[in-house]
Amino acid sequence: MADDLFHIAGKAFSSRLFLGTAGYPNQQVFLDSLTASGAEVVTVSIRRVDMAGGAEGLLDLLQGRAWLLPNTAGCATVKDAVLTAQLAREALDTSWIKLELIGDRETLYPDVEQLVTAAAQLVDDGFTVLPYCTDDPIVCRRLADVGCAAVMPLGAPIGTGLGILNPYNIETICARSTVPVILDAGIGTASDAALAMELGCDAVLLNTAVSKSTDPVRMAGAMGHAVAGGRLARLAGRIPKRLRAEASSPELGLIGG
Amino acid sequence: MADDLFHIAGKAFSSRLFLGTAGYPNQQVFLDSLTASGAEVVTVSIRRVDMAGGAEGLLDLLQGRAWLLPNTAGCATVKDAVLTAQLAREALDTSWIKLELIGDRETLYPDVEQLVTAAAQLVDDGFTVLPYCTDDPIVCRRLADVGCAAVMPLGAPIGTGLGILNPYNIETICARSTVPVILDAGIGTASDAALAMELGCDAVLLNTAVSKSTDPVRMAGAMGHAVAGGRLARLAGRIPKRLRAEASSPELGLIGG
Amino acid sequence: MADDLFHIAGKAFSSRLFLGTAGYPNQQVFLDSLTASGAEVVTVSIRRVDMAGGAEGLLDLLQGRAWLLPNTAGCATVKDAVLTAQLAREALDTSWIKLELIGDRETLYPDVEQLVTAAAQLVDDGFTVLPYCTDDPIVCRRLADVGCAAVMPLGAPIGTGLGILNPYNIETICARSTVPVILDAGIGTASDAALAMELGCDAVLLNTAVSKSTDPVRMAGAMGHAVAGGRLARLAGRIPKRLRAEASSPELGLIGG
Amino acid sequence: MADDLFHIAGKAFSSRLFLGTAGYPNQQVFLDSLTASGAEVVTVSIRRVDMAGGAEGLLDLLQGRAWLLPNTAGCATVKDAVLTAQLAREALDTSWIKLELIGDRETLYPDVEQLVTAAAQLVDDGFTVLPYCTDDPIVCRRLADVGCAAVMPLGAPIGTGLGILNPYNIETICARSTVPVILDAGIGTASDAALAMELGCDAVLLNTAVSKSTDPVRMAGAMGHAVAGGRLARLAGRIPKRLRAEASSPELGLIGG
Repeated sequence: MADDLFHIAGKAFSSRLFLGTAGYPNQQVFLDSLTASGAEVVTVSIRRVDMAGGAEGLLDLLQGRAWLLPNTAGCATVKDAVLTAQLAREALDTSWIKLELIGDRETLYPDVEQLVTAAAQLVDDGFTVLPYCTDDPIVCRRLADVGCAAVMPLGAPIGTGLGILNPYNIETICARSTVPVILDAGIGTASDAALAMELGCDAVLLNTAVSKSTDPVRMAGAMGHAVAGGRLARLAGRIPKRLRAEASSPELGLIGG
Repeated sequence: MADDLFHIAGKAFSSRLFLGTAGYPNQQVFLDSLTASGAEVVTVSIRRVDMAGGAEGLLDLLQGRAWLLPNTAGCATVKDAVLTAQLAREALDTSWIKLELIGDRETLYPDVEQLVTAAAQLVDDGFTVLPYCTDDPIVCRRLADVGCAAVMPLGAPIGTGLGILNPYNIETICARSTVPVILDAGIGTASDAALAMELGCDAVLLNTAVSKSTDPVRMAGAMGHAVAGGRLARLAGRIPKRLRAEASSPELGLIGG
Repeated sequence: MADDLFHIAGKAFSSRLFLGTAGYPNQQVFLDSLTASGAEVVTVSIRRVDMAGGAEGLLDLLQGRAWLLPNTAGCATVKDAVLTAQLAREALDTSWIKLELIGDRETLYPDVEQLVTAAAQLVDDGFTVLPYCTDDPIVCRRLADVGCAAVMPLGAPIGTGLGILNPYNIETICARSTVPVILDAGIGTASDAALAMELGCDAVLLNTAVSKSTDPVRMAGAMGHAVAGGRLARLAGRIPKRLRAEASSPELGLIGG
Repeated sequence: MADDLFHIAGKAFSSRLFLGTAGYPNQQVFLDSLTASGAEVVTVSIRRVDMAGGAEGLLDLLQGRAWLLPNTAGCATVKDAVLTAQLAREALDTSWIKLELIGDRETLYPDVEQLVTAAAQLVDDGFTVLPYCTDDPIVCRRLADVGCAAVMPLGAPIGTGLGILNPYNIETICARSTVPVILDAGIGTASDAALAMELGCDAVLLNTAVSKSTDPVRMAGAMGHAVAGGRLARLAGRIPKRLRAEASSPELGLIGG
């Protein structure tokens, strides 16, 4: 929908699907998936240790095709996350950062205490910060209060494909948030992405659900449809759930329905 | 997807969304919703008592725009359902019939014993029978055995918008059915329709979820996307659900994802 | 609760848990489980082919300790089920029968058409019939109409331990039934059994959940507690679900709660 | 079970149900509910503003009948919570404190950043701290690391009766926690309490579900059974969930089951 733009920090997007770049069989499958999905934002992981090294190929290919959102995947301390964000800004020439700061390597769950601290530092340093966080409405509000441009609560732990474990919390966050809400992590299939939008999310970020599916390009297309469908359904105003059946055509004539 | 046709009784369809015609604010909203949804099959209710009467307007408008699927909504006996089907064939010049035979007016739940009997009679009489039935795998098999062209198990009672109450049964039915499975009744929003397709349904029929939404045309578009997305996700082969987190970019370099 | 008796066909029971007898490590574990569970009704499978043979030991042990409810497990035709019931009556000197008539060996799902026919025949023949059926409110009503003493809708397929797949239907059946409703099949753990009672079931029958657990005697005790707790919760009238938080102690003094 | 004791900070309890004291119709109903539930721990709210005032009656009645666990309900800052805890210690002569520190009055959701800070201060000050927290495994670990004697993750927001919104997280917390896990808030009915225990919780605290039910004394009894049943089921080792049916008595003779 050309008339349903979505803004983060003043930048407008028409697609509400963000795509990760990890785990694809090869670069071409990723690029075809990107096209099939219609996504305009792509997140890439920055690792200090390899900053000298390669992969410029993908970066070059993405230039002009997608808005780059570097992330701090794998960081477990404030210092590490902040430094990684700064290196990303230098290397990719963007002040946008998806801030990941995990509490342990087993659950990959965000460490919200450190996350708030790192987010505040990066905001002060001029970054546009999009933090990967828990589905905790108080933490989400706090992240917005320290100046984050959006919040990215999880649906389920990274890579699990379990969908949205707690729709109630996601809906609560969306209803109260002063910044855009982007569901991040846990999506397994199209209906999960549609549900995220129906709950009020402004966008969905996913990676494994596409890259590790049997047919990533087709699944990318599925996710594009699902996000568009979920968004439209949200805007359209769904029927209330009723506990009792109700005939759709109770008393009509020849062509009642 | 032009290459993902769907057949019932030898007729090919490219859209997997079927739309009911009841309860729209007016005819124009219905027609705009039909366009927005991309649906090719439209179900209409036949009432003997009004066969003399009007509504030819809508029928004329639908000619050439949609495949008509008359239904026997409101019938509660074999005799009534069979007679209604015969009148529909005469009036609409089609041998296709969506067979509804309800057990009571409160739940609008199918009466499966009578349904099987009526289906068998109508098949013998040359009809292409699509029965609205429960999510009972044995009943669905029986309906296929007596010659039905498809089965139409419910997601939830008509008009409730509760979604798919028993995904396990729907998935079981899809995995075993020898005829197409069309989810009918209960859909409330886009993610419900996507889920139906992911469980293996060949198509989805819905009415109230669109006609009674706040913005039917937009919701019709949502459902079109949702059915397409759910179908693609099914074909693409989703990732398995995992109980433990797994990094999407565990050990990659500069651009790992 | 001595004052919360439960009646089937005029016979009163104080425990609302029925126990199956199959699959226990040995007879003693079964007997200890029976004691731990507090169950008063025990269901046993009758096979014509072995009527000459043994197992009288268990029967003797059960005499006086439990009310015997023979079942027709494994029967797939009306004729087979009726004959098995008649043999059971002769062998066990009871006119009670749990009528099982399955649609196929893969799903073990009831064949409701044949079930109604067999039930009607057995009622005519003087049996007290308790049919194992689907969670279909129309079928349950029909079984009551032909004279069954109770209905036994499934929670999930036999032996799956999936719990109650469709609580909505079970609740609908309970709200409308003119005869006792006994949830049968699918229970996996204690909370499933409690939920059945909260939905309005009069009793719960289970087997595998106890006999195949790691510690059957302990699980039998768990189920006894769960059924009692679920029943009490039903009688006590639970609080409504609220979408918004509400302080339990909003404005109280020193000892507010 | 006399042999299934539960320890917090070295003190042993045999009941795994903790009861709140707010919202009962009158004191006698509370006392009868306490008896019916079998609970040994009772939580009471301390308000500084009213420390001069009454309610000693209830305190006197509880002496010897229950272990008092004062709470800091309504506190929204570290300072307020710490001060309230200190006043509770003085007034009630106990160093145990259920630490509640909410993020806002609308959701009553814990503010986990402040909670960790307050917990650390109170531990340093010699308190036995039981913090009411979110279902975030990293926060729970952090609370244990700063010396809390247990963690009390929520099932759902206070007073909602929505049950356990995210069983996955509760199970994850239980599997990893080095201190006892007590589910707190959200319980609506008996099956919710049983589920908490099955997920691995060491105990359950609830208030509104009993005090605001139609018949608190009966519901208290229901909860006692449910917690005992859920605990036994956890210890007994439930059967795995299976996707396919399996006969409980596939090939047995006269008395197969």
